[in-house]
Amino acid sequence: MQGFSTLIIALGVSFLALQSAPAQVTTPAEIETKLPPGFIKEFGTMWTFEAPPTDYWRARYGFTPAKAWLDNVRLASIRLPNCSSSFVSPEGLVMTNHHCARECITAVSTPDSNFQELGFVAKTQAEERKCPGMYVDQLQSIEDVTGKIQSAVKGSTPARQVAQRNAAIDSVQKSCETGPGTKCQVITYYQGGAYSLYRFKRFEDLRLVMAPEEAISFFGGDPDNFTYPRYDLDLSLVRVYENNRPYQPKNYLRWSREGAKEGDLVFVTGNPGSTGRLLTLAQMEYLRDVQYPAQLSSYDRNLAVLEEIAKQDEKARRALENQIFSLKNSKKAVTGYLSGLQDSAVMAKKREFERDFRRRIAADPKLKARYGTSWDAIATAQRQLAGIAKQQRWYSFAGSQLLNVAGAIVRIPEQAKLPDSLRLPQYRGPSIDLLRAQVLAPVETEPEAEKQMLQAWLTEASKDLPVNDPFLTAFLAGRSPEVAAEAAINGTTLADSTARAQLLEGGSEAVARSTDPLIVLARRLNPIAMRVQQRATRLNDVTSANAEKVGQAIYAAYGRSLPPDATFSLRISDGVVKSYPNNGTIAPYKTSFYGLYARSAEFDDKPPFRLPERWKTHKSRIDLTQPFNFVTTNDIIGGNSGSPVINQNAEVVGLIFDGNIQQLPNRFLYTDEEARAVAVHSRGITEALRKVYEVDRIADELEGARVTQVQFRGDSLRRAPSPARDTARVGQGR
Amino acid sequence: MQGFSTLIIALGVSFLALQSAPAQVTTPAEIETKLPPGFIKEFGTMWTFEAPPTDYWRARYGFTPAKAWLDNVRLASIRLPNCSSSFVSPEGLVMTNHHCARECITAVSTPDSNFQELGFVAKTQAEERKCPGMYVDQLQSIEDVTGKIQSAVKGSTPARQVAQRNAAIDSVQKSCETGPGTKCQVITYYQGGAYSLYRFKRFEDLRLVMAPEEAISFFGGDPDNFTYPRYDLDLSLVRVYENNRPYQPKNYLRWSREGAKEGDLVFVTGNPGSTGRLLTLAQMEYLRDVQYPAQLSSYDRNLAVLEEIAKQDEKARRALENQIFSLKNSKKAVTGYLSGLQDSAVMAKKREFERDFRRRIAADPKLKARYGTSWDAIATAQRQLAGIAKQQRWYSFAGSQLLNVAGAIVRIPEQAKLPDSLRLPQYRGPSIDLLRAQVLAPVETEPEAEKQMLQAWLTEASKDLPVNDPFLTAFLAGRSPEVAAEAAINGTTLADSTARAQLLEGGSEAVARSTDPLIVLARRLNPIAMRVQQRATRLNDVTSANAEKVGQAIYAAYGRSLPPDATFSLRISDGVVKSYPNNGTIAPYKTSFYGLYARSAEFDDKPPFRLPERWKTHKSRIDLTQPFNFVTTNDIIGGNSGSPVINQNAEVVGLIFDGNIQQLPNRFLYTDEEARAVAVHSRGITEALRKVYEVDRIADELEGARVTQVQFRGDSLRRAPSPARDTARVGQGR
Repeated sequence: MQGFSTLIIALGVSFLALQSAPAQVTTPAEIETKLPPGFIKEFGTMWTFEAPPTDYWRARYGFTPAKAWLDNVRLASIRLPNCSSSFVSPEGLVMTNHHCARECITAVSTPDSNFQELGFVAKTQAEERKCPGMYVDQLQSIEDVTGKIQSAVKGSTPARQVAQRNAAIDSVQKSCETGPGTKCQVITYYQGGAYSLYRFKRFEDLRLVMAPEEAISFFGGDPDNFTYPRYDLDLSLVRVYENNRPYQPKNYLRWSREGAKEGDLVFVTGNPGSTGRLLTLAQMEYLRDVQYPAQLSSYDRNLAVLEEIAKQDEKARRALENQIFSLKNSKKAVTGYLSGLQDSAVMAKKREFERDFRRRIAADPKLKARYGTSWDAIATAQRQLAGIAKQQRWYSFAGSQLLNVAGAIVRIPEQAKLPDSLRLPQYRGPSIDLLRAQVLAPVETEPEAEKQMLQAWLTEASKDLPVNDPFLTAFLAGRSPEVAAEAAINGTTLADSTARAQLLEGGSEAVARSTDPLIVLARRLNPIAMRVQQRATRLNDVTSANAEKVGQAIYAAYGRSLPPDATFSLRISDGVVKSYPNNGTIAPYKTSFYGLYARSAEFDDKPPFRLPERWKTHKSRIDLTQPFNFVTTNDIIGGNSGSPVINQNAEVVGLIFDGNIQQLPNRFLYTDEEARAVAVHSRGITEALRKVYEVDRIADELEGARVTQVQFRGDSLRRAPSPARDTARVGQGR
Repeated sequence: MQGFSTLIIALGVSFLALQSAPAQVTTPAEIETKLPPGFIKEFGTMWTFEAPPTDYWRARYGFTPAKAWLDNVRLASIRLPNCSSSFVSPEGLVMTNHHCARECITAVSTPDSNFQELGFVAKTQAEERKCPGMYVDQLQSIEDVTGKIQSAVKGSTPARQVAQRNAAIDSVQKSCETGPGTKCQVITYYQGGAYSLYRFKRFEDLRLVMAPEEAISFFGGDPDNFTYPRYDLDLSLVRVYENNRPYQPKNYLRWSREGAKEGDLVFVTGNPGSTGRLLTLAQMEYLRDVQYPAQLSSYDRNLAVLEEIAKQDEKARRALENQIFSLKNSKKAVTGYLSGLQDSAVMAKKREFERDFRRRIAADPKLKARYGTSWDAIATAQRQLAGIAKQQRWYSFAGSQLLNVAGAIVRIPEQAKLPDSLRLPQYRGPSIDLLRAQVLAPVETEPEAEKQMLQAWLTEASKDLPVNDPFLTAFLAGRSPEVAAEAAINGTTLADSTARAQLLEGGSEAVARSTDPLIVLARRLNPIAMRVQQRATRLNDVTSANAEKVGQAIYAAYGRSLPPDATFSLRISDGVVKSYPNNGTIAPYKTSFYGLYARSAEFDDKPPFRLPERWKTHKSRIDLTQPFNFVTTNDIIGGNSGSPVINQNAEVVGLIFDGNIQQLPNRFLYTDEEARAVAVHSRGITEALRKVYEVDRIADELEGARVTQVQFRGDSLRRAPSPARDTARVGQGR
């Protein structure tokens, strides 16, 4: 209590002791002085396995992993279609997040047993259930194909260059996929500054072993999403089978019984999806001033409509809750990204870097000739894009989900006829097939919601666009937004997937003949919208061609000392388990099971803070002081979901599942003062497996797997060895 | 997890249900429309008992307390010398914060039993221990004396006006204190816009009944100070005796067994110390641009020195820990205040108000003539103060605690000879006696710390002031800061209170004769410093004389619709128990005992998160789901420590002990989006008393006291009565 009260109180022991640098890592002062030249903190630590930053690791942590350590970690880290995961036992057990196995959990559910809600535990191996369609990819090898790709690009227009590059990538990939189970992908680094061919082994027989109830895997729901302190068991365990028997991986991650502790050096391996740290200032300003504000206003508009409808009855609420959650999730994320770009300190650092970067390029006549004009070309294109931003925003089919489908149905046959380089981006290469699949996928919506969203969209478009705007005039045809929206949705058959499939199969003729009101509308709007979208595409092609040059320039000026932006490819990030200043006090590095029960009690056990029944009945068995979740300074982003957190012995100490709210601006500039990755603690996992889910067989499999250390250990730290390493037993992995 | 991960999850029940408006209070929309004219939210709700805002309460909550309700609440709310408290049983039990009874707890401790550390529980009434020197004041009556005070002020200079006003206040107070046990105080409202005479009954026999261990009363220490979620039993219970028997107050607050619930309308009574909501823009800009930054830099400088010394050995650390904590506390508070003033939205609102206010004054020729020039006069004075801010900052004795004492010793005899109106403010009226007492009070310090602080102070002064600055020249006399500091502290006897007492008693002659190096230094510096301090005093007098006019103008323009700034006098604030958006998610309205054990476990039971032994051994008895702390939107500030939180039946539902970090800017502008008062929950108190401290006699006394409701109830809410009120038993208070 401030001012008048007499708060001068003698604390037994200074709190600072908790904050002092732990013994395992070097102190910040040491870190600052010993970093190798070229290391720029704000570009983060999403390192590739091709160029592990050994100098930096040695300088910062006194840690130098052996090649065997890196190979083991790479091969144990396996990719899901949109997540990360890892082998965590010699019997092919794979650990990932609950939300990464959602489709499998739903697929193996029965009408009587919704395993999303109830959780799933295979008491025996025989009970493990096959996940239809699920697969994981293991990165076998990496080959630099920069020359092959770049030499294929000779076109004179950006669009042709794009097409040539795509063709070269296709061809490299195809010639690599020599046998069954081998999948290849060309990974883009530095926006095209470099290319690498990743060869994967694909495993397609995965079986669900364990998944907790969604209420505990996503405890805290939307409010707690992207935040910390946190209390989620966001875990699922699947097993890879080969020939109907558990696959026995040569490389897997052992389990740390001790788990993460404050100050530990830890690594995260996984597939961060996308970052924008190498964007030019002009690109970031465009996001800040044009794109993100427009996105946020569209989220707000749609949320207002959906929440209003959801209030009206339970059925509508259920139908819309996924859409509402998804919008809130996006809104929270984009708000966080935008806050970074609006932070003048962030932008000042970006400006400073760009100045230094351009100076380096300008200082070398060859580099200057090749790349010198790229920044200005991008800035011009971004300015021109901003000039048509309003049209680009509204000249679309985004007003309702069904209209969006109608737009795709009208455009697919038309775009399919064009050469790749003349198509809109979302119709190029394999994207057009993805789009076809999306048109056929079930649409989760409600006619009333569609109408109201379309009406709200038209109302806002009317405010934003000039009175005589041709697109709007064509859409409204003199009617009010309400009447026009009503007319468009009433009588459409597009909610029915058969109707959509028939139109798609029927091609341009079927589209031309259709009397479905949404198809008729989309046909009318399409030519008007297309002119703007094509212009925007041309400008984006200019930006992307020049961004590639900037990427090449980055590579030329800084080499691999800057990690490339995330591209959903395997990375390894170093970090430290670390508490942080939060909300005026300190967020502890770990949370506890006590904290879980606290948060539930403090919200009177109401969703999304309601505990599953099993967690109530089994509470007395749990050691509530055990760590549940924890935080690290590792550099992660969406796509890292399911990544293992490992210590310097390559043992699992945790499982990444989120970042805190302060981490969102890291998309553009890495910071570690308050930004943290959030993970489930390895001891939290085994405590829950043993005490709540009563599957000792799995906990034993995880912990018993901890037999081999030495072959994967890096050089020791400069400091005294930690007890964990002293007690590590020596043995032989399979 | 953002982006790539598939987080679209079906929650069983919408979370929004938790956030919807509770049944007991009107919804925000209703509130907006029904507020009476003249109510301006940002001036907060620190209402006086003379002018309870009944229209506003009726409009906002549908609640109209009867006169008996207000009288009871006023008489049950009693003032400690720097805290608030209340009668909570018919046997004279008084509830306040632990930190408000610190002196008593220390005083009744023995060499074997440090009750600060161990806690104190009187198992029987006989064991209750007398608190030496402790007293409480009960507000018996209030009389408007504005005319009496204002008519006495006739002087032509601001300084003379100040003296005349002080004399008039003195005289009014003295003539009111007619009998023993009666204490009177003239309370200033609106910076002198109005004055009221408060007549108190003083109780001087207080005995300690119960005080928990400091480790639980201040659990979380400095880090958690000013924050929420929180887990503190910041409670002490004392009993008022008269004639050696428990005093039986006619008016006391009954206890609510149910305690605070989300959405409840609650009131806080107590003595908020000081706010600055009626300051002019110019005054706030001065704080923002000059005073607060200087204060913060001085805290930082001193903290750096003290923490460095404290690191060196345990003895030094113990000697300095109170000083360090006090500095951290001040730094956190002032950082919070400053953040409010730096918030452009806050300042825009202030600007808007001032524009409206000045327009009102300008529109009335009489008001314009009387007050029209005051804002500009203040602005000019603040500008001139800013012009001498550097000298004012450094021309002082603030470099070390002992030098500060030396300065006071040198000045006291000199200032005592002057008429009040010519003295520096801290030597006027009764302040000079306070200063004398401070000079004699024990000094908690360390010669090494004194030297280093003085050296750091001189070093920074040398950077800030010009090379030939006369004060600095006189201080350093050609020496380095290190040498000068060393010379000043070495050989001083001022650490010894006898030496200080002798100098003080000896008056100007003793001072003139002294060869103590600090006294010699203070004598040399004093004339130089005095010139600047006198000029600053004159400017401050101008500001304060014109601030009084602004206060009168506020009163003339808005009447009592704006609550006066806090002046450590009894106020009643309305508010609502309410969760709030925090750190990306929601801070629940209450915390639980689970949360206490969680926070302790999450910091590995290290101080200041270490639980007292009793809390470990008795843990299994506690119902951990019970509420422990909670938050409300009530308008509080330092001085409110120990205030009761009561429901509309005037029952205790909690005990105020802090505000969250978002509340600090409320010093200048009240907000309730995220700013919250933090209280101990009434059920948390009884749970701890029964289960941890095993004093059912006290818990029974509190809960059994709940007999009389009806006579103090206000009119019922418009909505259906709450279960709490339905079950309220009817009876008769003593």
